[in-house]
Amino acid sequence: MDKIKQYIEQNKQRFLDELFDLIRIPSISAEEQHKQDMYRVQEYWRDLLLKSGVDKAEIHETDGHPLTYAEKIIDPKLPTILVYGHADVMPVDPLDLWESDPFEPVIRDGKIYARGADDDKGQSMIQAKAFETVLKSGLLNVNVKFVIEGEEEIGSAALAKWMEQNKELLKADYILVSDTGMIAKDIPSITVGLRGLSYVEVKVTGPNRDLHSGIFGGTVANPANILAKMIAQLHDEKNRINIPGFYDDVIEYPEEIRKKINQAPFDEEEFKRSLGVEELWGEEDYTPIERTGIRPTLDVNGMWSGYTGQGAKTIIPSTAHAKISMRLVPNQSSQKITKLFVEYFKKIAPKSVKVDIQVLHGGEPYVCPVDLPAYKAAELAYTEVFGREPIPQYSGGSIPIISTFEKILGIKSILMGFGLEEDRIHAPNENFPVDLFYKGIETVAKFYIHFDKIVNK
Amino acid sequence: MDKIKQYIEQNKQRFLDELFDLIRIPSISAEEQHKQDMYRVQEYWRDLLLKSGVDKAEIHETDGHPLTYAEKIIDPKLPTILVYGHADVMPVDPLDLWESDPFEPVIRDGKIYARGADDDKGQSMIQAKAFETVLKSGLLNVNVKFVIEGEEEIGSAALAKWMEQNKELLKADYILVSDTGMIAKDIPSITVGLRGLSYVEVKVTGPNRDLHSGIFGGTVANPANILAKMIAQLHDEKNRINIPGFYDDVIEYPEEIRKKINQAPFDEEEFKRSLGVEELWGEEDYTPIERTGIRPTLDVNGMWSGYTGQGAKTIIPSTAHAKISMRLVPNQSSQKITKLFVEYFKKIAPKSVKVDIQVLHGGEPYVCPVDLPAYKAAELAYTEVFGREPIPQYSGGSIPIISTFEKILGIKSILMGFGLEEDRIHAPNENFPVDLFYKGIETVAKFYIHFDKIVNK
Repeated sequence: MDKIKQYIEQNKQRFLDELFDLIRIPSISAEEQHKQDMYRVQEYWRDLLLKSGVDKAEIHETDGHPLTYAEKIIDPKLPTILVYGHADVMPVDPLDLWESDPFEPVIRDGKIYARGADDDKGQSMIQAKAFETVLKSGLLNVNVKFVIEGEEEIGSAALAKWMEQNKELLKADYILVSDTGMIAKDIPSITVGLRGLSYVEVKVTGPNRDLHSGIFGGTVANPANILAKMIAQLHDEKNRINIPGFYDDVIEYPEEIRKKINQAPFDEEEFKRSLGVEELWGEEDYTPIERTGIRPTLDVNGMWSGYTGQGAKTIIPSTAHAKISMRLVPNQSSQKITKLFVEYFKKIAPKSVKVDIQVLHGGEPYVCPVDLPAYKAAELAYTEVFGREPIPQYSGGSIPIISTFEKILGIKSILMGFGLEEDRIHAPNENFPVDLFYKGIETVAKFYIHFDKIVNK
Repeated sequence: MDKIKQYIEQNKQRFLDELFDLIRIPSISAEEQHKQDMYRVQEYWRDLLLKSGVDKAEIHETDGHPLTYAEKIIDPKLPTILVYGHADVMPVDPLDLWESDPFEPVIRDGKIYARGADDDKGQSMIQAKAFETVLKSGLLNVNVKFVIEGEEEIGSAALAKWMEQNKELLKADYILVSDTGMIAKDIPSITVGLRGLSYVEVKVTGPNRDLHSGIFGGTVANPANILAKMIAQLHDEKNRINIPGFYDDVIEYPEEIRKKINQAPFDEEEFKRSLGVEELWGEEDYTPIERTGIRPTLDVNGMWSGYTGQGAKTIIPSTAHAKISMRLVPNQSSQKITKLFVEYFKKIAPKSVKVDIQVLHGGEPYVCPVDLPAYKAAELAYTEVFGREPIPQYSGGSIPIISTFEKILGIKSILMGFGLEEDRIHAPNENFPVDLFYKGIETVAKFYIHFDKIVNK
């Protein structure tokens, strides 16, 4: 098995160069002005996968941004792994908080700093290079397909539709994804639970124009004050979500499972220190690990109203806005929760304002059973590379497409993630450790070998 | 007395041209980039007043933006009127809501559209041209002084200090100000009450950086949610302000005075229609007129946090901000109320966030007795020009400097305002009717003549 390590060592610099070139394409899916970059990034992926050894790679148009499909069919009778990754990244504002250009990767203290260094350019590249490593080492004994989409950060809507139309093409036994995290650099873990998502944008309208707050103050509902009051009503005093029916479908875990979940290492003091907060916050009667792992949450992601410039402007704003998202857990349904939110939010609005709600996107929660052969193969690969058995982990994040894969294709995903909490994904100064990049490649490469042994024995 | 009308008629176009040139100087006191415009606007005022007939006019430096002082001393033994106005205007954003350039005045449907058309360039120009009219008509028999400051919209702090140092220069019997409104075009009124102001900016800090709302959601306080909750706690369910001690010094008016106040014409249906709202809002047990006239209020003037761009970004913001102002009534003290706000707002903050509060500015409430000789003169002037006795009015607005005049100089102000509710001051498409501009000049000119008759008889 040293062949794997040897191949990685020999191609070390090139692997990194390929990642850097991928990062340099500013593929922000949420921003109209990057529309062309969403094509450029897929051209890069197509060419990269061809060089890595696939039989064919092609860019497919969708209703939204394009995607890349590629495949290496060793033998149609062998099992097939479908690798999923995404080529798009989050917006980069506020830009002034970045210590270096988000799209010009640099290595500082052993970490690659750039937007997408982890999520998901770094991690997708791990998949591509692991595939190349196993193939070029002459050890690949399963079929491999790739789907690299361009809309993960905005909800994967186009991919879902494209999948419906390409079920045959996508036939596989397992989906393999590197887009999640592990507990710590020396504590490997495999994500077995993902939260779903309901994301809405609300607009509260008061008077038909900004008003002088002296002349009108006290007679007309101020939409900023009203929005604040409405947001306040979304949680109760135990920090539970106040929307009627919200918890109806949430799985309540028995004490023994909760105990197991809480065995994951968690240093509350260190966690608080790293976030710069004096006290944690969350739903009463649950631990922080449970709060992100098995409990739903609701967060304001953005909020704006009225005058936000320098100094004092004495107005009653005409409108107030908020982006609000909910993280869901099994067996909540994104569509149902969104509907409950909309109903409740409209119900609590006083008659003195108008409320408009725009549904931005959603996704269902996901669970992966730990007795699947592919999970076992991943477990063995991590154990071999990290010297320690990986912990099955319930993550707080959402990858809506994972539950969509299951729904549309009927395939379970194995989430071999290598991200770290301190990677600052979605935030300024996103980064990814160089050594984890190589360790990730090695782990995924060894997954293929263990998987072959388990299923083709 | 026809001399007055005649002079205005003969100089009609020039008066308007002079106002337009004044408006063209974008003197936004709140914005750093307009620093030089605050000088340009005072040079314009100095030259304008010299042309209008003052003996001397000079620009004075202050700790902030400069101001113009001018005087016409007819006879030191005669009474003196000190005219106050301000050369600065409010910011103009959102710019895209303006139907024409805010600093290029145009007349549409008999109204001048521009920032400052009413507040306070239009109204200050009324004062300057009324003075010129009486003087050039050979009818001025009182001394007149002018102070045109540059910081009214940001709190007049520099003027207050400058006044302390120039008490002798500013000696006068009454201050005359056109910076308020009248009930309607055909219902003249004189403002006899002004609300005070406390204006603060609050910042709530949660985690030390924006966090992924999936990975961290549920474990850490979201400053946007917390800020919303804190703002919600500023009012109770009767829409009374919830800050302990807030109402301690508020004058509770006896039933008969409240009856009189409510005699001012007010068409609730029309008011709602003009604002585009289905229902009014305000403190229980008070009418809309009382709510702006004799009751204090609290409004969010601006609010911002997290991601406010296009689409969905799943973050927990690091900070959330709001600009919050309170309108005060006699005998509340701005300093005391600000202190109560700061104490309460810090007290209701959970330990999971940090709160910073910046005091932006304040001003005291003001009352003018209706038996003052100068008030009587104003009353006669309005009656003559508008054919109807003006209603003494409690305005909801704040001109902090008016109470400061009283405190520092010991002089009462007569508020001869000509603004209309629909003038959209502080908002996009501010405007001022051309005919009121001329009627204002005539009214103020006739004030001088009636005042002379009353005090010099």
